[in-house]
Amino acid sequence: MKKMLFPQIAQVLHGGDYNPDQWLDRPDILEEDVRLMKEAGINTATLGVFAWSAYEPKEGKFHFDWLLSVMDRLYQNGIYTVLATPTGAKPAWLDENYPEALRCDANGMRLRHGNRHNHCLTSPAFRRQAEVIIKRLAEAVKGHPGLILWHISNELGGECFCPLCADQFRNYLRQRFGNDIEKLNKAWWTDFWSHHYTSFEQVEPPYANGERSIIGLNQAWREFTSWNMGQYVKFERQLLRELTPDIPATTNFMQVYPTLDYHELAKDLDMVSWDSYPRYHSDTESMPETAAETAFAHAVIRGTKPGQPFMLMESTPSLVNWHSFNKLRRPGVLRLSSLQAIACGADTVQYFQWRKGRGSFEQFHGAVIDHLGTDDTRTFREVAALGADLKKLAPVLGSVPEAKAAVLYDWSNRWAIEGMAGMAASTKQYVRTVMEQYEALSRLGVETDVVSPEADLSGYDLVVAPMLYQLKPGRAEHLRAYAKNGGVLVFTYLTGYVDENTLCFLGGFPGDGLKELTGLYSEELDTLYPADRNGARFEDGSVFEIRDYCEILKVQDAEVLASYTDDFYAETPVVTRKKAGNGSVWYVGARLEARGMEAVYSRCLDEAGTVRIPMPEGTEAHFRSNGEQRFAFYLNHTEEPVTITPAAEGTDLLTGRRVKDSIVLEKYGVAVVAEDAV
Amino acid sequence: MKKMLFPQIAQVLHGGDYNPDQWLDRPDILEEDVRLMKEAGINTATLGVFAWSAYEPKEGKFHFDWLLSVMDRLYQNGIYTVLATPTGAKPAWLDENYPEALRCDANGMRLRHGNRHNHCLTSPAFRRQAEVIIKRLAEAVKGHPGLILWHISNELGGECFCPLCADQFRNYLRQRFGNDIEKLNKAWWTDFWSHHYTSFEQVEPPYANGERSIIGLNQAWREFTSWNMGQYVKFERQLLRELTPDIPATTNFMQVYPTLDYHELAKDLDMVSWDSYPRYHSDTESMPETAAETAFAHAVIRGTKPGQPFMLMESTPSLVNWHSFNKLRRPGVLRLSSLQAIACGADTVQYFQWRKGRGSFEQFHGAVIDHLGTDDTRTFREVAALGADLKKLAPVLGSVPEAKAAVLYDWSNRWAIEGMAGMAASTKQYVRTVMEQYEALSRLGVETDVVSPEADLSGYDLVVAPMLYQLKPGRAEHLRAYAKNGGVLVFTYLTGYVDENTLCFLGGFPGDGLKELTGLYSEELDTLYPADRNGARFEDGSVFEIRDYCEILKVQDAEVLASYTDDFYAETPVVTRKKAGNGSVWYVGARLEARGMEAVYSRCLDEAGTVRIPMPEGTEAHFRSNGEQRFAFYLNHTEEPVTITPAAEGTDLLTGRRVKDSIVLEKYGVAVVAEDAV
Amino acid sequence: MKKMLFPQIAQVLHGGDYNPDQWLDRPDILEEDVRLMKEAGINTATLGVFAWSAYEPKEGKFHFDWLLSVMDRLYQNGIYTVLATPTGAKPAWLDENYPEALRCDANGMRLRHGNRHNHCLTSPAFRRQAEVIIKRLAEAVKGHPGLILWHISNELGGECFCPLCADQFRNYLRQRFGNDIEKLNKAWWTDFWSHHYTSFEQVEPPYANGERSIIGLNQAWREFTSWNMGQYVKFERQLLRELTPDIPATTNFMQVYPTLDYHELAKDLDMVSWDSYPRYHSDTESMPETAAETAFAHAVIRGTKPGQPFMLMESTPSLVNWHSFNKLRRPGVLRLSSLQAIACGADTVQYFQWRKGRGSFEQFHGAVIDHLGTDDTRTFREVAALGADLKKLAPVLGSVPEAKAAVLYDWSNRWAIEGMAGMAASTKQYVRTVMEQYEALSRLGVETDVVSPEADLSGYDLVVAPMLYQLKPGRAEHLRAYAKNGGVLVFTYLTGYVDENTLCFLGGFPGDGLKELTGLYSEELDTLYPADRNGARFEDGSVFEIRDYCEILKVQDAEVLASYTDDFYAETPVVTRKKAGNGSVWYVGARLEARGMEAVYSRCLDEAGTVRIPMPEGTEAHFRSNGEQRFAFYLNHTEEPVTITPAAEGTDLLTGRRVKDSIVLEKYGVAVVAEDAV
Repeated sequence: MKKMLFPQIAQVLHGGDYNPDQWLDRPDILEEDVRLMKEAGINTATLGVFAWSAYEPKEGKFHFDWLLSVMDRLYQNGIYTVLATPTGAKPAWLDENYPEALRCDANGMRLRHGNRHNHCLTSPAFRRQAEVIIKRLAEAVKGHPGLILWHISNELGGECFCPLCADQFRNYLRQRFGNDIEKLNKAWWTDFWSHHYTSFEQVEPPYANGERSIIGLNQAWREFTSWNMGQYVKFERQLLRELTPDIPATTNFMQVYPTLDYHELAKDLDMVSWDSYPRYHSDTESMPETAAETAFAHAVIRGTKPGQPFMLMESTPSLVNWHSFNKLRRPGVLRLSSLQAIACGADTVQYFQWRKGRGSFEQFHGAVIDHLGTDDTRTFREVAALGADLKKLAPVLGSVPEAKAAVLYDWSNRWAIEGMAGMAASTKQYVRTVMEQYEALSRLGVETDVVSPEADLSGYDLVVAPMLYQLKPGRAEHLRAYAKNGGVLVFTYLTGYVDENTLCFLGGFPGDGLKELTGLYSEELDTLYPADRNGARFEDGSVFEIRDYCEILKVQDAEVLASYTDDFYAETPVVTRKKAGNGSVWYVGARLEARGMEAVYSRCLDEAGTVRIPMPEGTEAHFRSNGEQRFAFYLNHTEEPVTITPAAEGTDLLTGRRVKDSIVLEKYGVAVVAEDAV
Repeated sequence: MKKMLFPQIAQVLHGGDYNPDQWLDRPDILEEDVRLMKEAGINTATLGVFAWSAYEPKEGKFHFDWLLSVMDRLYQNGIYTVLATPTGAKPAWLDENYPEALRCDANGMRLRHGNRHNHCLTSPAFRRQAEVIIKRLAEAVKGHPGLILWHISNELGGECFCPLCADQFRNYLRQRFGNDIEKLNKAWWTDFWSHHYTSFEQVEPPYANGERSIIGLNQAWREFTSWNMGQYVKFERQLLRELTPDIPATTNFMQVYPTLDYHELAKDLDMVSWDSYPRYHSDTESMPETAAETAFAHAVIRGTKPGQPFMLMESTPSLVNWHSFNKLRRPGVLRLSSLQAIACGADTVQYFQWRKGRGSFEQFHGAVIDHLGTDDTRTFREVAALGADLKKLAPVLGSVPEAKAAVLYDWSNRWAIEGMAGMAASTKQYVRTVMEQYEALSRLGVETDVVSPEADLSGYDLVVAPMLYQLKPGRAEHLRAYAKNGGVLVFTYLTGYVDENTLCFLGGFPGDGLKELTGLYSEELDTLYPADRNGARFEDGSVFEIRDYCEILKVQDAEVLASYTDDFYAETPVVTRKKAGNGSVWYVGARLEARGMEAVYSRCLDEAGTVRIPMPEGTEAHFRSNGEQRFAFYLNHTEEPVTITPAAEGTDLLTGRRVKDSIVLEKYGVAVVAEDAV
Repeated sequence: MKKMLFPQIAQVLHGGDYNPDQWLDRPDILEEDVRLMKEAGINTATLGVFAWSAYEPKEGKFHFDWLLSVMDRLYQNGIYTVLATPTGAKPAWLDENYPEALRCDANGMRLRHGNRHNHCLTSPAFRRQAEVIIKRLAEAVKGHPGLILWHISNELGGECFCPLCADQFRNYLRQRFGNDIEKLNKAWWTDFWSHHYTSFEQVEPPYANGERSIIGLNQAWREFTSWNMGQYVKFERQLLRELTPDIPATTNFMQVYPTLDYHELAKDLDMVSWDSYPRYHSDTESMPETAAETAFAHAVIRGTKPGQPFMLMESTPSLVNWHSFNKLRRPGVLRLSSLQAIACGADTVQYFQWRKGRGSFEQFHGAVIDHLGTDDTRTFREVAALGADLKKLAPVLGSVPEAKAAVLYDWSNRWAIEGMAGMAASTKQYVRTVMEQYEALSRLGVETDVVSPEADLSGYDLVVAPMLYQLKPGRAEHLRAYAKNGGVLVFTYLTGYVDENTLCFLGGFPGDGLKELTGLYSEELDTLYPADRNGARFEDGSVFEIRDYCEILKVQDAEVLASYTDDFYAETPVVTRKKAGNGSVWYVGARLEARGMEAVYSRCLDEAGTVRIPMPEGTEAHFRSNGEQRFAFYLNHTEEPVTITPAAEGTDLLTGRRVKDSIVLEKYGVAVVAEDAV
């Protein structure tokens, strides 16, 4: 059951972005690069990101010799190539010749040439140029033994308000509403504020200087933009499939990116990858907090392509140059954070970047090789040591996290919550709330996935659906079935308010049948000011703090587990539970502090019969399995040694030492225990 | 002397915005609406706000049947109609056909179709379309027995920088300056920075990317914009008068709106009304503070049409959806705030909105009927109970507040202060300062009006003119006459600096003769940093804190009542008094803390022989009279019971109980004492 | 060796901006002005700033009579004229007739007529109009005995993104890169992000909606804008030289202005002048702090034209109207700050403005004569008293500060630091850091210059080069030579990272040979979060706090004077010293607190044999010399009397009293000791 990403390579991929095109006049440096890569245990290089003008300096003039020469040299030295399509940035000549390829901003004003990923998502002229360069590139490298993966464009994102995109949007809407403008009017409730349309031609994108008050329109625009980017990815993927049918493809995601539905995008990719740049050592959060956020991001990304490893496509060997404070990673953190990625399901550790360029925007972004140019640096030594560690982790390759619980996360729901007018913009914090549920389960030692509400949930003991404001058709039924079949299902405040067009359900929230499933409805939603507090008192007398949101619940048929402590709704229910078939449905009507949610989840897990091993503060445990072999990862994000008890029994792949009962992790320490077969 | 707004209805109006046009496909809901309205004691509905596209879905195609059918059904059930002209938002076809109706932003860029009230104030094309729909609408409903009031457009506001408005502005200036550009040059002091104009054609609006440094131009633009909106209101009012001469008209104001001179606008209206949305229960101010601000706003609005009741056109039955934190109103606050409006002179309690729509921008704005759809909610019960209370207040109808004091407030003065370059933008706070004077008098139990400096002042014992920076021609004389005739007149720092064009008076501030009236002039104005403090020491040794502003006064002929305690002007005068004919003129040269102003006003009131009854913290008293009968309103904005002593003698209309000497008000309690005839 | 600015006047210039053109209809006021000027000891007036529309109300119609009449009257009364060219603001007719003279904003959008200094730097049409009016003006006043100085335009600044400027930029680049686009590509490292250009035509300014990610482009644009403004100054200077060859010229600088390289601009001026508006008495800094910042600004300005006095062209007699809080200057501060300017090398004290205008943007800016119109004001009395003091300082004229130390400051380096992507934007603070070095030396009683890295350094005992990030060709060599010749040279973190195009040096920072000179290189630069701290422990056990930046140094050949106290680089070097020929080179690798830098500088000065006299808190000492006579200035910026010991021996010019050994300064007191010849 191993899902090997790169069967031809028997190692964890260790490499990163490499830009020999910036150093073609320095063959000495290109030689030295290969020597140093080997010294650092590098086995892969990502080439050609942003190399369009190097490939095609003038329209129709192509140069691939330098690329092939680099790929050859790397391959001869045991280093494979991940190759990007160069569409992440356009050459100046392209914008000069095809101004329509430039995006328009939210006022509909055409942007000028510059920066990087900024081509119009719709433009046919741009696609023609992209097709030319991608075809030429693929033909040039096709069959090269070093080529293992296509890297589609780079960090796709953004939106475009040009006339072509506006037309494309209207076509999208025609399709969505069966070419019936009255269906759109109904779905968007346009009789409000006289917003009724009499034709699709009247519909405009939500320009900053235009229509921003139709919630359904705003939602549709976000969905359209994500869909349209998906169309673009399909276009590149299809081209590559035709030319190099055996080479898989990915594109590099960006954390929990706000405006692209990665669940949809991942469907056209063979594997998913992402660029991870945590803000370590800040003065606003602790190391364990930063690490927990990163673990959550890993879970989100792997959840976009469940059942197989993902790639850590970019990370920094030392620091970045675009945070508000660009602090050095302390010694040991490169190793810790890289092994955390592996623990969470990655089979690669890749950097941006191999060597610092001399100029322009990222000249001070961290790299394996500094402007100093030698291997006599802390960073180089840490990278080389990590390379040696990674070699020991080959047995882990192809295994996947063994999750007992899942937290639901959905982009469309996010857009609906962010776009709704109500509550408090500053405290809605949907993503943070999802993350906090992941973290609470993580602190209980439960490996947890973060997946789409449409995912197969049948394997999970526990499913948490935080703030599931929007219920697209079929979702309520999907969740009901999960519970009826024996699952433990947890809802929170703000569940089931609107449908796929953001129309409110009538007859009580949560709608679409969940009122019956939960045995209650929410009469009012109270938004608290930041200084306001309430509390939840449980049957055992324990009280947990509440902030931000309180639903006033009318319980019709459910067990009340906790009630409010204060305000005019004191003594009314806040946490409930109801049997549902073979499972149960829980409802948490307010934003409970972390310890409170842990208490709720502990009860849920006990009911589900799931083992939980509360972790020492600042540590993480992860479990990967390939069906035959299980690997337990233990990480210490604190600066003090810590003992994990109980620990899995087996052999620590990093040290070769036997582990039994417990294990001591030094500051920033990691253990990877290959468990003994049972 | 009763000024009944709606003689045909013998009750306080109780109703609100009702949008049946959003539910025409749900006749069951329309039926249920009427049943629930009657249950809640509703006797009026505001129809047709934003219904243009429902009336005229395509240019020249009209549908009024649905409206008439709703008006009929309501009327048959004892519910009257307030009918809006639908110009608060334009249909999409209108902007498609007549782009000139779209406003231009402050850079002169044309906005796109969207949102709501955004038509160009000047556009002839828009007026033609407005004329068509208003005429058609008026013809359709003319003579309907349920129609009691026109509601012109909705919450008018904003400005437009289009070429038509720029031309209109130039015409306005030609008129104002007798077509003599040199008069304008002199009035705006254009020799400064080479700003001299040689023709009116050269004058442009103060575009954000253009001329913003001529203070006189900026002031004129604000006056023009308000005037131009007034022209628009006149246009609608005139149309309605021609078609339905017997139906009065209003438009809904928005608190102390920054850019429209409501004193001017009100002249074309039969009655004034406003939309009140206080931020109750915030964590930055107390209930009594929020309530006091609301009382002030009521006073400002009623001051725009003195001598008659006003309307509370909109308020929320529970919460709004557009505050930064949309908290629920606590139980009892709907009643308290509604009765506060009556206490302050309103004869109506109306809501936005009757029923929550399913979609778009205000789907989560509070309403009497929720998405739940039943009468089994806290909100519905509170509304229905209030409906019953309001029935008891019919005797109050047509009476008006009996004010002993007045505080002057003026939009042009506000613009002049806000637009002047000097002092500190963050602490000028003209409106807040006016409000604080109102509140100080309110805490002394003195019913106070807030009126224009041009209002008839003869009935007041005390007139306070806070920060009367600008003296239009005749205003100084008007105030002098008030004092000479026996009034007590209070000036503050920043009085009489500039004329109607914002030119400084020469020869000493306060100018235009007030130097002689006050017996002093201000040599320097010191602007303090936020952490700076000074003090005023009175003859009795009491010291009150000063912040923000201190004038250094040269007293020529006045009694010094207090002197500065600190800084290089310590021991120089800060509060003075001078006899003036039969009255007196007071001058407070610094921003004194509230208790200090109360001390000053106490002395003023004693001199005027006005009764003052210091109110317990967090309570309010108001007095309405119709010439024959006086009504005393007592409100408790605190959460503890409180005793008011002395209280008026008479019968509490809400409870039917006799009141004598004192009265106890529960948490959020209200009493309305119909006083015994003396 | 006296450098008299105005040999024909034997006095400190005392005057200011005077706008009789605003009062031509008030001859009584114009008469009164002269009477009051004489009473106040005024001997100069700055005329014609912004008088273009007064000179040329319509294109081609000229009026200079009023000007000549004013100049005559002033001269007859002993008052000289500084005459501005009127290009600081354009008449309305000019923008009407020549729209190309209007600037374009950073998006390339044309601005509209308005405000003031906003003409396109490149526009030929504007230059033609400017040439006409300047020629006419010069012809009108040529030979007038009162005319002593030209004042070119006013407070030049800003930038323009119009097509003409974009073309001019491309021409500038062609010139700079020898018309070779590949040189530009290499210099800007354009292979990064596919930024390669194939022609100069493709290069655009860094539009806000265009290319902002090429660091070299951004830097070149800032240099171009400054250069282009320089071209404009040359144009006006040349015209004036042709017409009135004997009249010197200046333009008024604005403190340490961010976008103009005053070191370059000054080359075309006969003397430099600036407008000083410190924020005295704020609640965020103390009087001594505000005064120290002002002293630094004086040093920066005088450093743009070393070896001769500068002019204080504008200052306020009381307050300004454009600070966020426009507080009055306390009594005595006008005198103190004016004499501080003299102490720092000014030979003039001039005000904006003589008389407050009645209207427009600066109607409330402080002036000698208020709207009140009399001499019976605190401000007038202070000005007149200062006038009397200044008369006593005539012996000082033509002397210059005698500086023992220099701190290097460079605009191009500033732009490079501000424009680099890295570190933390909020804490880079180059200018503040330079200032802090000046202040540290000032507290040690060492007169210090602030000069360009290209300045002649041979006269200084000590040279400090804070954050010298950019090394243009030859600069490293210039500094090396200084040290080798016996100088003490101090570098800090962030030295020698990039070249003139912002390309990083390879092989270790500090580059261009400074690695050898300092005996070390910086392996990593750690950017601290605001709450982070480290420390530097010196050999004597003293520890000083570090914040913001720490370099991790590899010392190859230098003496270690201090090491870090904390973090993973604890015990590694932070302060070093290395002999260099007859001098020494010091390196301070972190941002040390002020006391720490004072300790370092004390050692440096001792090594150099320079006398240092630590000053009492809140006091300043300055020393001017004309080669024959030395003047010691002592200033007390505190509110308490203070004793300066030792003080120079001689006669206090202000009091005529003998000074020996020590001197007592009252609150805000000043002494100017003409030292006895030795």
